[in-house]
Amino acid sequence: MRGYTSDKDAVLKRLRRVEGQVRGLQRMVEGDEYCIDVLTQIAAATKALQAVSLNLLDEHLKHCVADALAEGGEGADAKVREASEAIARLVRS
Amino acid sequence: MRGYTSDKDAVLKRLRRVEGQVRGLQRMVEGDEYCIDVLTQIAAATKALQAVSLNLLDEHLKHCVADALAEGGEGADAKVREASEAIARLVRS
Amino acid sequence: MRGYTSDKDAVLKRLRRVEGQVRGLQRMVEGDEYCIDVLTQIAAATKALQAVSLNLLDEHLKHCVADALAEGGEGADAKVREASEAIARLVRS
Amino acid sequence: MRGYTSDKDAVLKRLRRVEGQVRGLQRMVEGDEYCIDVLTQIAAATKALQAVSLNLLDEHLKHCVADALAEGGEGADAKVREASEAIARLVRS
Repeated sequence: MRGYTSDKDAVLKRLRRVEGQVRGLQRMVEGDEYCIDVLTQIAAATKALQAVSLNLLDEHLKHCVADALAEGGEGADAKVREASEAIARLVRS
Repeated sequence: MRGYTSDKDAVLKRLRRVEGQVRGLQRMVEGDEYCIDVLTQIAAATKALQAVSLNLLDEHLKHCVADALAEGGEGADAKVREASEAIARLVRS
Repeated sequence: MRGYTSDKDAVLKRLRRVEGQVRGLQRMVEGDEYCIDVLTQIAAATKALQAVSLNLLDEHLKHCVADALAEGGEGADAKVREASEAIARLVRS
Repeated sequence: MRGYTSDKDAVLKRLRRVEGQVRGLQRMVEGDEYCIDVLTQIAAATKALQAVSLNLLDEHLKHCVADALAEGGEGADAKVREASEAIARLVRS
């Protein structure tokens, strides 16, 4: 996130919304709401988290990875490898 | 969730933990932590939500769907269709 | 699949189409096509396989699981557990 | 894939194996094998396709995106955007 202040507020806003969704899920479970409805809301919260991930990854490629590649050398390879591993975790989560 | 009091506490506990993870994510972003580390934590929160879904779905099949199938008739078909649609949303989220 | 002859042809047709997609992918790679285009086609083949899974699972719930639940007893619990495990593998794949 | 001959053979080998898995799936369905077993094999084929995607994406970042970033300008931004979109399709497939 280093210095990506333009996006930081947007990311925080999205995360606060996810927090609200997760609290809403607790109220649904406490109120014995129908489990299919709970599942639908969990899917919505999961998609919201995924959107944050994709946003962060895009920023990461545009800034950290781009800077490392501009500098070249071993640091560049390491950054690409690290990004690829993060993508793999994202795809499998 | 209707009447599944045995599992309700466990589900609520898991959801409270996810809420804590999402609040932790906000602190990470506010503290400008490295985005790859933020991504790793988002993947963990996503997996935790997924685990809640799978748990709820298992309970749903064991109770609601099983009861509807025991009663038979059109209600049973509708319950299975509804469960299949929830599974599809889960797989695609 | 036991005896689900009505759907068997549809499932086989879908799988043959996926086979064609995977052969098309090989031709793309052999022809040095742009990797983003290859990735788009892999995503299409993956979605096609997922659709087959969701279709099979729906049939499985409607027939095998429903029959086991109608009979009741330990067999019913085992069938539901097995289906839940298959759903979990699907969600995580 | 342009010019990535070192990896091309490995990618083709993996795709041929996926083709074999999909043909095996057809035989399983034709032979009326148990649908949970068919689902397990579909999950394996899906994972294999996903591994090809992650491999291609890693190569794409290391080569195409790295080259575009080294050149700089608008082309670099476009390459990163294109890669981010491919990652999003991968995550959602």
